[in-house]
Amino acid sequence: MLNHSFYQRLYTNTTQRKSHLCIGLDPDLSQIPYHFSQDLKGLHDFLVEVIETTSALCIAYKPNLAFFEALGIDGLRLLESIRKRIPTETPVIIDGKRGDIGNTSAMQAKYIFDYFGADATTLNPLMGLDSLAPFFRYKDKYNFVLTLTSNPGAHDFEKQTLDNKQPLYLYILDQCDSWHNAYGNVGCVVGATQQEFTEIRKHNTNLIFLIPGIGAQGGEYHDAVRVGKNQDGLALVNISRSILYGSTERDFATQMRQKIQSYLDQER
Amino acid sequence: MLNHSFYQRLYTNTTQRKSHLCIGLDPDLSQIPYHFSQDLKGLHDFLVEVIETTSALCIAYKPNLAFFEALGIDGLRLLESIRKRIPTETPVIIDGKRGDIGNTSAMQAKYIFDYFGADATTLNPLMGLDSLAPFFRYKDKYNFVLTLTSNPGAHDFEKQTLDNKQPLYLYILDQCDSWHNAYGNVGCVVGATQQEFTEIRKHNTNLIFLIPGIGAQGGEYHDAVRVGKNQDGLALVNISRSILYGSTERDFATQMRQKIQSYLDQER
Repeated sequence: MLNHSFYQRLYTNTTQRKSHLCIGLDPDLSQIPYHFSQDLKGLHDFLVEVIETTSALCIAYKPNLAFFEALGIDGLRLLESIRKRIPTETPVIIDGKRGDIGNTSAMQAKYIFDYFGADATTLNPLMGLDSLAPFFRYKDKYNFVLTLTSNPGAHDFEKQTLDNKQPLYLYILDQCDSWHNAYGNVGCVVGATQQEFTEIRKHNTNLIFLIPGIGAQGGEYHDAVRVGKNQDGLALVNISRSILYGSTERDFATQMRQKIQSYLDQER
Repeated sequence: MLNHSFYQRLYTNTTQRKSHLCIGLDPDLSQIPYHFSQDLKGLHDFLVEVIETTSALCIAYKPNLAFFEALGIDGLRLLESIRKRIPTETPVIIDGKRGDIGNTSAMQAKYIFDYFGADATTLNPLMGLDSLAPFFRYKDKYNFVLTLTSNPGAHDFEKQTLDNKQPLYLYILDQCDSWHNAYGNVGCVVGATQQEFTEIRKHNTNLIFLIPGIGAQGGEYHDAVRVGKNQDGLALVNISRSILYGSTERDFATQMRQKIQSYLDQER
């Protein structure tokens, strides 16, 4: 078992809560239940109720930074406030997909890890190791590196074949493995919608996968858990919209709990 | 000549100012001249004086979003304020290196183009066309896609050879060309520090290159201009730190003007 607080909290949550669910927080004013005020105050109250409803059922939260940014500076204040409402035992992965030349990456890491207090983040590896290392050097934080994403555009570059006949995504996976050996805090983002999902897990049984593409994007929760777990039984199966915006009625929290329960029943 | 306001403003500025200089705005409290207060107010006043000193000498500004983000929400307010001080005729490229699944990219574009009012941005293409198209659809904005970056990590993935014997960066360049044909607002980020710079320009004479890596990173301004221009004579040669932080003295603005002049003299 990896000696890392993020990894160990995931393990504890997975075991105690019998869950591999990561809840994506993508705030969208146009989709919140009708009884909340249709403004940032309403969005705040909605997200607080989502966290109170779900924090014993999921193993982590993944706020999608861009959805807060799109609301401007007030949206970033909302993220600051919401982040404080998430209990310490449930880690927060701020999804920003950053990565740049080293001195800029150091600033990105400061924003995500120091300013917002994220426990983990997502990174785009295109610019190579020195663009990610400033994040990896935060020893107590965790990093999920884009490897094969859940969108159609994964064909454009991630699935291109290299001259050693390996697809780019497997080469990225191998690099992530060696970075994890060096830094001890690296996982991968692997989309559950991709037919290569099983092959990728077989290729590497060690790294934790953060798995998007479930629910609104069409992937199945139970398949993602069954196939996606690493050697310690860990996986972060992310669902955002189909949990958050399943109901616009006053009893949305009850319906949300039932929806999550229907996912968790698939793995019990 | 491309019928696009950003392109045409660059052309006018290049011709009238006899310059290909893009000034990178990377605010760093630890490096501003001593007579400014060592806080965000001082940083604001410093950046305003930088803009007043340089706006007739450069063809565009490139605020580095991460450097503002690292200062937290107050840093983003600083960017809002600074952005308004840049004259309309000098375009603003907000350097964010975004790209995500489509509904998230749409939020990123909203933040950069609508909220901050950027005229252009930088994008990371790893996730493919559908991760960039929400940006491309802003017809009056311009997009610079990472192709071959100026950092050592460019070797890790960008320079990998595909099975058709083409390096990944040339494949990205070809995709950018076809996206530009479809959308009319796509350029590339190509680092001047890379020995492949000349080959890349020969491979495509059409797209505008945004060229980092000059000054503190070691590239030469006059080489970047000479080699980097497209068929209309356009290039954005970015310099950040070596212009901004050349002097910490009271007469820093005079020294900054002289420093820029020494760059511009290289192309006259």
